[in-house]
Amino acid sequence: MSQVDNAALSAHLSHVLIVMVNTTLPANIGSALRAMKTMGLSKLVLVAPKTYPHPDIDALAAGATDLIEQIEIVDTLEQAIQDCHLVFGTSARSRTIPWPLLDVRPAAEKAMQAVTASHQEIAVIFGREDRGLTNEELALANYHVTIPVNSDYGVLNVAQAIQIICYEMRMAAMARVEQQPDPKATMQVLDGIEMEWDEPLVTHAQMEQFYPHIEKMLAEIEFMDPKNPRLLPLRLRRLFGRIQLDRMEYHLLRGIFSRVQALNNGSWKKSSTTSTQDEDQDNA
Amino acid sequence: MSQVDNAALSAHLSHVLIVMVNTTLPANIGSALRAMKTMGLSKLVLVAPKTYPHPDIDALAAGATDLIEQIEIVDTLEQAIQDCHLVFGTSARSRTIPWPLLDVRPAAEKAMQAVTASHQEIAVIFGREDRGLTNEELALANYHVTIPVNSDYGVLNVAQAIQIICYEMRMAAMARVEQQPDPKATMQVLDGIEMEWDEPLVTHAQMEQFYPHIEKMLAEIEFMDPKNPRLLPLRLRRLFGRIQLDRMEYHLLRGIFSRVQALNNGSWKKSSTTSTQDEDQDNA
Repeated sequence: MSQVDNAALSAHLSHVLIVMVNTTLPANIGSALRAMKTMGLSKLVLVAPKTYPHPDIDALAAGATDLIEQIEIVDTLEQAIQDCHLVFGTSARSRTIPWPLLDVRPAAEKAMQAVTASHQEIAVIFGREDRGLTNEELALANYHVTIPVNSDYGVLNVAQAIQIICYEMRMAAMARVEQQPDPKATMQVLDGIEMEWDEPLVTHAQMEQFYPHIEKMLAEIEFMDPKNPRLLPLRLRRLFGRIQLDRMEYHLLRGIFSRVQALNNGSWKKSSTTSTQDEDQDNA
Repeated sequence: MSQVDNAALSAHLSHVLIVMVNTTLPANIGSALRAMKTMGLSKLVLVAPKTYPHPDIDALAAGATDLIEQIEIVDTLEQAIQDCHLVFGTSARSRTIPWPLLDVRPAAEKAMQAVTASHQEIAVIFGREDRGLTNEELALANYHVTIPVNSDYGVLNVAQAIQIICYEMRMAAMARVEQQPDPKATMQVLDGIEMEWDEPLVTHAQMEQFYPHIEKMLAEIEFMDPKNPRLLPLRLRRLFGRIQLDRMEYHLLRGIFSRVQALNNGSWKKSSTTSTQDEDQDNA
């Protein structure tokens, strides 16, 4: 491991986005940048930071000023992760229904497998200093990730957590550094298995059109009460977030939702059936 | 590894079902039993064997006669695997659309993880001597499994393939023999991750009610042409087979299909909405 191909290592780690949500202390942003730089990560996105810019950021990012220039500031978490395929939310544990939950090491291995085998873009989301991520924010993640800590001793602060996750990302990247990303665009990682696939996986942004679509359809056929949906939207997110849909499956399902909506509002006529059928089947 | 808890080992391996479809030569059944016994497996199911019983079976099963008495004979592959949670089909490669495909070692590790972490029942399906499994039979599997062979040298016969898969199952079981099956009924393995879960996974038999239901619904709303469905049913099987639905998700989706059908044939009236809503949400 002493002799490492740093170019390949940086290439792998460049697929990992660190996202900090509503950070209060500029010092934590600076410390995060330093933690990232020590491990070879470079992309930080700040979602509506409380204070930015601020001299403390530059002070604590000592030697990582090049990363400061690359910082991206966005208004919403959705904007931050829209181009990612695999999203990890840092959390002690989901407070509603159990979510696919990984310790930091297997999470980093899963991330680097996705990067090296199928060029996926990864995001790791960190919450507020005082109360972490909301359940709504956690529901945007495919997986939740935890860092094993001595519960008698308390929890890590956000900068420490970023340090450990960046470290495990680097370790996982080093283990795969001999492995060049697979040129075959049809290679995918599903269920942790690297395999030949006939379709690319969809991005988070596409899934954020998928969930409102299925929920709207379910509301229209009164299967779900939009004023009181209970756990239904969350269960749908956990279900389809677990699968990682490919493009064909995505269009197939959305085509079905649209057909049900058209059926429900009476706009669908048999004459339109054939075309829809063809449209969905031509790709199949 | 020299000192192994054989009781625990047998307990793990007792969750693995070997299924042989339309076997022609009784000698292969006898050899399969012997291969199984040498590795500590005991459950063989024969789907419509060409010749049974036959003295060659007893001859080649020498010393495995106790397993002969446990052989189960069924008419269809569906009957053989109905109580299983995780089904592997042995195949060179899917001939239609790519299916989740594993080499025998990771497949055995996945199987033993499912057994030790969440008491899942496993089936490994082997095809005919001359032409293996049909695409229809392969589509019943969650995963396809291959044995790496020297392609210049040709393929293994069915008894050799069973020998190698039983061997890898034993190796994987030994690696987990210290691990007693988790008593928590809420523990599940999803995406290869062992995690807390709030619902048990559904069985193959339940999924065999799921697929006809979604296909019937899609035919009724004319999204799929039952006379010419093309790859749609296969894509649906690959999609939902990949997820391993839990019980709640299963009832949720089937509830949606039923609502769409009722909407389509006009039998659904708003008065019935609330009850359906409650029924699905009470569990949620």
